Parts: sequence; C-alpha cells; structure tokens
Amino acid sequence: MNYAIVFRLLGYVMLIEGALLLLPAAASWIYGEWFVLGVFLITAAVSAAIGYALRGIKPKSKMFYMREGFAATSLSWIVISIVGAVPFVVAGCIPNPVDALFETVSGFTTTGASILPGVEDLPKGILFWRSFTHWIGGMGVLVFLLSLLPLTGGSHVNLMKAESPGPQVDKLVPKVQSTAKILYGIYFALTVLEVVFLLLGGMPLFESMLTAFGTAGTGGFGFKNDSFTSFSPYIQWVVTIFMILFGVNFNAYFLLLLRKFNRAISEEVRGYFAIILVAIGIITANIYSLYNSFGEAVRQAAFQVGSIITTTGFSSCDFDLWPTLSKEILVVLMFIGACAGSTGGGIKVSRLLILGKTLGKELKQALHPQVVAPVRMDGKLLNHETIRTTNVFMGAYFFIFVVSFLLISLDGFDMVTNFTAIAATLNNIGPGLAQVGPMMNFGSFTNPAKLVMIFDMLAGRLEIFPMLVLFLPDTWRRF
Amino acid sequence: MNYAIVFRLLGYVMLIEGALLLLPAAASWIYGEWFVLGVFLITAAVSAAIGYALRGIKPKSKMFYMREGFAATSLSWIVISIVGAVPFVVAGCIPNPVDALFETVSGFTTTGASILPGVEDLPKGILFWRSFTHWIGGMGVLVFLLSLLPLTGGSHVNLMKAESPGPQVDKLVPKVQSTAKILYGIYFALTVLEVVFLLLGGMPLFESMLTAFGTAGTGGFGFKNDSFTSFSPYIQWVVTIFMILFGVNFNAYFLLLLRKFNRAISEEVRGYFAIILVAIGIITANIYSLYNSFGEAVRQAAFQVGSIITTTGFSSCDFDLWPTLSKEILVVLMFIGACAGSTGGGIKVSRLLILGKTLGKELKQALHPQVVAPVRMDGKLLNHETIRTTNVFMGAYFFIFVVSFLLISLDGFDMVTNFTAIAATLNNIGPGLAQVGPMMNFGSFTNPAKLVMIFDMLAGRLEIFPMLVLFLPDTWRRF
Repeated sequence: MNYAIVFRLLGYVMLIEGALLLLPAAASWIYGEWFVLGVFLITAAVSAAIGYALRGIKPKSKMFYMREGFAATSLSWIVISIVGAVPFVVAGCIPNPVDALFETVSGFTTTGASILPGVEDLPKGILFWRSFTHWIGGMGVLVFLLSLLPLTGGSHVNLMKAESPGPQVDKLVPKVQSTAKILYGIYFALTVLEVVFLLLGGMPLFESMLTAFGTAGTGGFGFKNDSFTSFSPYIQWVVTIFMILFGVNFNAYFLLLLRKFNRAISEEVRGYFAIILVAIGIITANIYSLYNSFGEAVRQAAFQVGSIITTTGFSSCDFDLWPTLSKEILVVLMFIGACAGSTGGGIKVSRLLILGKTLGKELKQALHPQVVAPVRMDGKLLNHETIRTTNVFMGAYFFIFVVSFLLISLDGFDMVTNFTAIAATLNNIGPGLAQVGPMMNFGSFTNPAKLVMIFDMLAGRLEIFPMLVLFLPDTWRRF
Repeated sequence: MNYAIVFRLLGYVMLIEGALLLLPAAASWIYGEWFVLGVFLITAAVSAAIGYALRGIKPKSKMFYMREGFAATSLSWIVISIVGAVPFVVAGCIPNPVDALFETVSGFTTTGASILPGVEDLPKGILFWRSFTHWIGGMGVLVFLLSLLPLTGGSHVNLMKAESPGPQVDKLVPKVQSTAKILYGIYFALTVLEVVFLLLGGMPLFESMLTAFGTAGTGGFGFKNDSFTSFSPYIQWVVTIFMILFGVNFNAYFLLLLRKFNRAISEEVRGYFAIILVAIGIITANIYSLYNSFGEAVRQAAFQVGSIITTTGFSSCDFDLWPTLSKEILVVLMFIGACAGSTGGGIKVSRLLILGKTLGKELKQALHPQVVAPVRMDGKLLNHETIRTTNVFMGAYFFIFVVSFLLISLDGFDMVTNFTAIAATLNNIGPGLAQVGPMMNFGSFTNPAKLVMIFDMLAGRLEIFPMLVLFLPDTWRRF
C-alpha cells in the first residue's frame, strides 16, 4: 500500500470532518448548550489540526490502484467514525466508547441502529450531530471530498468505485469531480424540498432538518423515543414519499433533469417501484383488521415498506406486533434494499435483477444448449465482469452474514433477534425484530457483539470489499 | 417434449415400484397383518399393470435431450410418490391424501419430515414401507432403473445428471449402466454393514433394517416417537458414524476400492470432515454444562451434527432446548449439507468450496487486475460452466426459499418455525426448530402449506432445475 498517499487522504477527511463539526456546534450555540458547544469546538479543532498535519505528507509515488482505493475508503470511514464518536463520550451522553463508536458508525453508515434506550433528553447539539452523520454518510465522505478536490491519477475513479453503492459506477459526466458535484447538488436540493414539506405540516425547523437528514441518508435515527408513531398522517406520508424517493438511483434524477425520461425510468427503478407496490398491497391486506380504516392500514404499510426497503429504519408503529407474513415480508425487504446509486443499503434491486436475469438465461441454455442467450439490462449487454462481481458479492455477503449471526449468538439472545440484528446492521437498516424491534434498542448486546455489528455496518455501507481488503496481509505491505 | 418416450420411462418406473412394494408386503405377511398385506399387494398389482401398459408405448422419435431428462425425472418422482402414498391412505394410517403424499414425498426425497404425531402404533408393513422409501430415494429411482436397463441414446447421461446430487456428474466408468451398478453395490454393502453393527448392539433385525434404510438414504424416519433418544450409546455411535459415512461422496468409496487413496480423499471430503469436527467441537463446548459428562456431550453433539449435515434428521435429544449458538450452528449445517454424489441433501460442500474459491480469486483479481488466477479443485481447473451453474443454482435456491418462507407464513406460525420448516424440507433434513422441532411434527400446517413443502422436498432432492422445468410452457409443447 502506498501509505503516504493514503495518510494524506485521511488528512483531508479529518480536515473536512473538523469543518462539519462546526454545524452541531452552531446548533449547541443556538440552544445555549455551552458545555456541548465546547466539546464540539475542541473535537473540531483537534481533528482539523491532525488532518492538517497529515495533509502535509508528500507521497514519493503517485501509485493509486484499486487496493489503495479500497483501503483508503475503509480507513477513512473508520477514522471519521472514531473522531465522530468523541463528542458522545466527552459530553457524557454515551460514556462507553464502544457504544459511542456503535452509535457513530450506525450514523455514518446510515444504519440508524441505536444503543440508546431514549433520545428525548439528549442535548440539541448531540441530536443534530447524530442525525447529521446520516446526511454526511448517505452520499459519502469521499464523494464529498472528490467534489471539492482535484485529485491525481486514478484515485478519483477508484475512490468513487469503492464508496458508491451498487454493482457498477456510472459516471454521469466524463469528469469524476463534476459527477460528484451533480450528485451532491441533487442530494442537497431534495433534502431542502423535504424540509419545506415538513415545515408546511407544522413541524418545527430543527426537527424538520433532523428528519430530512435521516430520510436523505436513509439513516433512521429519530429524535423521539417512538420514532414517527405520534406524528400526523400528513407528516408520515411526507416522510414515506421522501424515503422512497431517496431510495431511487440518483442517476434517474440527473437524467430527468436532462429530460431523458426513458433512460431515467430504468429497469431497476421500475423493479424497485413494483416491489414496493406489491409489498404494500400484501401487507395492507394482511394488517387491515388491526387498524381502524383502510387508509390507516395503507399508510402504516407504506411507511414501513418505504422505511425498510430503502433501509432507512424509521417506524410509524411497532411492526413487531404485525402478523408473521407481514413481518417476514419486511425481513425479505431488508435484504433486497434500495436501488444502486441511491443512499440506501441492502443487496440492491439491480443486483437481484442481474441474478434473476442470469438465472433465466442459464435455465434457457440448459434446455436449449444450442441457443446463445445474452443477458441484457436496459437494452445493454451485461458484461461478464459485472455478473461475476455480483455473484462474488453475494457469496461474500452471505459468508459475513453467517459468521456474524453465529458470533453474536454467544450473547444468548433468541434466533429472531440475532438474525434480524445482523440483517438490520449489515443492510444498514436500523431496527430488526424481537429484542431489536422498532421500540427496542441494541444496548443490551455485549461489547464484542457490538464490535461485530460495527464491522457489519461498515461492510454493508462500503459493499463489503473495502472492509475485506483490510484483512489481507498483502494490503499492508509497504512499497 | 417427447411424450411417448417419457411415458414409456414412467411405465418402467411404475413396474419397478410394483416390484418394490412386494417387500413391505412380505413384512406384513411375516407379522400377520393380512389387511395391510392386501393393500400392498393390490397397490403393487395396479402399479405394475399401469406400468406394463405404459411401457408398451412405442416412441416415434428417439430424441431425448436435457429437457426430457429433467421432465422425465421430476415426473417419475411425482408418480412414485403418488403411488407410494396409496397404501398409507387405503390402510387408514393417514386418511388425508395430502398428508399421505407429504409423508411419501418426505420418504422418497429422504427428508424424513413427518406429519404423524406418533409412529409406534403403525402396522409393521407400513413402518417398513415408510423407511424403505428412504432407501429407494437415497440412491435414486432412475439410477436404479439405469443399472437394470440398457436405454437408448443420450437418455442415460441426461437422466443421471438430472437425478444425481451435486454440481457435476462423474461417471466412475465409461458406461453409465456400470456406474449405476457400482454405486448401488457400494450402497447395498454399506447398508448391510450397518445392519450387522446394529445387530451386534442387540437391536432386533426388523428395527436394524429400518434404521439402516433411514441412515443409508439420509432420510430420518424413525420407528420410535423419540427417534434415537432412548437407545444405548453404542447404537447412537453406530448410527452417528454411518450417517457421516453415507454423507461422503460415493466416488470416494469407489476410489478407495481401487486403492487410489489420494484421489479418494478429495478437497470436498476433507472439507466435509473439517466442518463436522469444528461443529462438534464448538457445540460440545457450548452444551457441556447441560450433560453429565464430557463423553455424553460429545456423543450428543456428534449425533446431531452428523444427522443434520448429512440431512438425515434422526435425533438423540431435543436439540430445540440447546443454547442459541448450538441451534444456529445446526441451522447453518442444514444449508451446507453433505458431499455431492452422496445420498444427502442441502447445498453440498463442493458447491460451497466452488463459491469460496471463486470469491478468493475475484478478490485477488480486483486487487491485482493484471494477474490471472484460475480456480482449481483437486488440482483440476474448474470450468466456467460449473462455476456459472453453481451460481445459478444458488440464485434459484434462495428464490425458492424466500417464496416458500412467505407462502407458509400464511398459516400464522412464528418465524423460526417457518424458516426452519423450509430449511428442513428444501434441504431434505426433516426436523427443524420450534413448532417443527425434533419432538414435534409437520401435521399442524394446512394443506396448501404442505403442498408448498412437498414441492420444496422434491426441488431439494432433484436439485431444483428438474422441478423448475415443469413450470416452463415450452416443456409441455409436443414435438
């Protein structure tokens, strides 16, 4: 690994985090939380100082391959999480450092799984930071960096590949820097739009911002102990619609802006909406008898489906009390996840489409060995590379799933808790079922189990490979 | 589809089943169960008569491709199951035809999942037939047919491919007929050996035979309501060892007979034993405190591990009462399954080896794009065909798993029951956990849920594709 260039990059990341920490500091200042303000300012200063020092490292070589891209990405995420956890510990809100790291990783990876039994008593600055980590993590720290910095050589594409969700990276425009700017532009605009809609529903500005951060990043940290249960139907519908919108491939919005409507509504986007509609339909029928009206049943079904498939993790009711079929559909949606190129996690609709198409093709070919049936997506041939990488992703995904599932079972919880805890962290969702259900939290796990889930959240957000690369001794060889 | 040739094949299968039904008839005769004897004789006669009539069909064309192989295989299995269910219904032991079909499919597919709450009052002839279906299904009906009949054209290999478990079919010797004879020879010899060892432990001949049938086919139907809980440690160890032996790729035994020791101990066989040893080790440590001695803990761990990984499904204790970690390890073993080319079900160790090796290769290639790293198994290059088919198998497997899991949840059981019920039927194991645990049964599911699981058991035994082919309209087109 080219240590110098990676350290330099980590320096930039810490500089940016120092700057970003000024926003929760501002919130603390507005609400007169002087101690917390001090904590944020000192953390910001230290982070920026270390970052400035690291930034000064002069790399001898400009070599930056896929391996450097992977390692730099995973290390960046680990560093921002450690720095981001400091305010929780120092402010005394989460004294146990492992808990604070869990909460911060959960924030940046847009998981939204919390170890806190209640959040309503937290200082406003801390609440702001908690939700803001979702917004930062949703689009990616390095993508943000790329939008600002003109970096050298192959580092652009390799970093973007490592941090962007989905089997393929589509550069919207030839330059990576411009692509990153466009993505952040769309992200910012949609976030502001949601804030406006929430304000129209009578939600205060501060809460609207927190909600929008959590929705935009498909995170899921709330500011009420019962998430969105006690909000008005209007607010619940606004959140539902924006959750679903943030689960759409961002390329679609770019193409819509360019008025390329046909290309915008790709097979993945159609598949995504089809799955959502079918799931809402079945769950509504299944839970109808639990609610007072058809409208309420649809709203509850839509909110939970939107929240789970986009891996946001907000809840508008305790879905752990729903009938088994509905709960199982939610568990399946946890794995499906949102579109590639969105802020959501999970396996991603496009990967499942690729797998489904390959399956159909192979079945056809087994029966008619003489026919060559290529696999197409959106009219374009899928290359072997993408199909193979998808298969390998699935293999690694299930391997990590099984190992984590076994490791955390040492804590002695029941199987549904263990299964959904890993499903909820590896897919960056947040709540699971049973002991980690929407009205429960992850605080009762032991530190080793929390470390496993911290790894899973990072692996889920970075789509596994960057985290696996850290385990290869080869990666750490100096050259 | 070439209907004539497929019907002709079904005719042969029904003739053979007519002959095989004479064995339980003999058991009924010995035990003086005259009514049951009559039921078996009449079923045998009708099956043979229909079979004889079908056998007379003269196919105009000898075309027999992979599609005919798949369709003929799945139809054969459906036909033998329907015929095999008749005695249960007519003898009054299982009045509901769906239940009887479930029990028979469970028998032939060597699943061992039962809808019967108790089996100790069943007539001896019925008990014999129930266990004998395991023995027939273990090695395969068509493989048996192939060992007897010189069939035409490509039908041999295509039938063998469709019925044999595992990603590849190795012909042991150039002729398919000889290969089938050798396999049945080994199978028969090992079964007799187990009977001898059981007799030495003081088990009566009848019970020894039933036990050996269930072990050899990796089935799991017992003749006591508590399976093997009340047997002596000696008997439990004999059953454990033979279960594990029947989970080994049968090629290994053939190669051992030829004194090719190195080739016999293939990577798959080594992987299989490694998984077994690790699982026994962890479970022993985990359940140690529940038992009186280290020896007893090892025995219970070994019996259950051997039973589950080989997908047999016997039990020597109620493992549903074990700690979560041990239960989860058993659930993982349910999916792993035995070796390819054995009588066991599940995903198979070789498929997981292929997936693991592909994963390692892709990871290496992502980091060093210039290096070409071929995937080898047992020193031989794995061709793309095998890797792709393995991936497609996994895709189809998980698809069927998820759909079945959702469908049976309409019955309203808890999630662990639904999950392990599908895991236990699709992998041909037998018992699951919770409501389908080792001391429970599948009788409380509704008929639609049972039909889903009947499909899953057949799909599991025939490795999915032959069953999927039945859903393609193309298959039913006459030519």
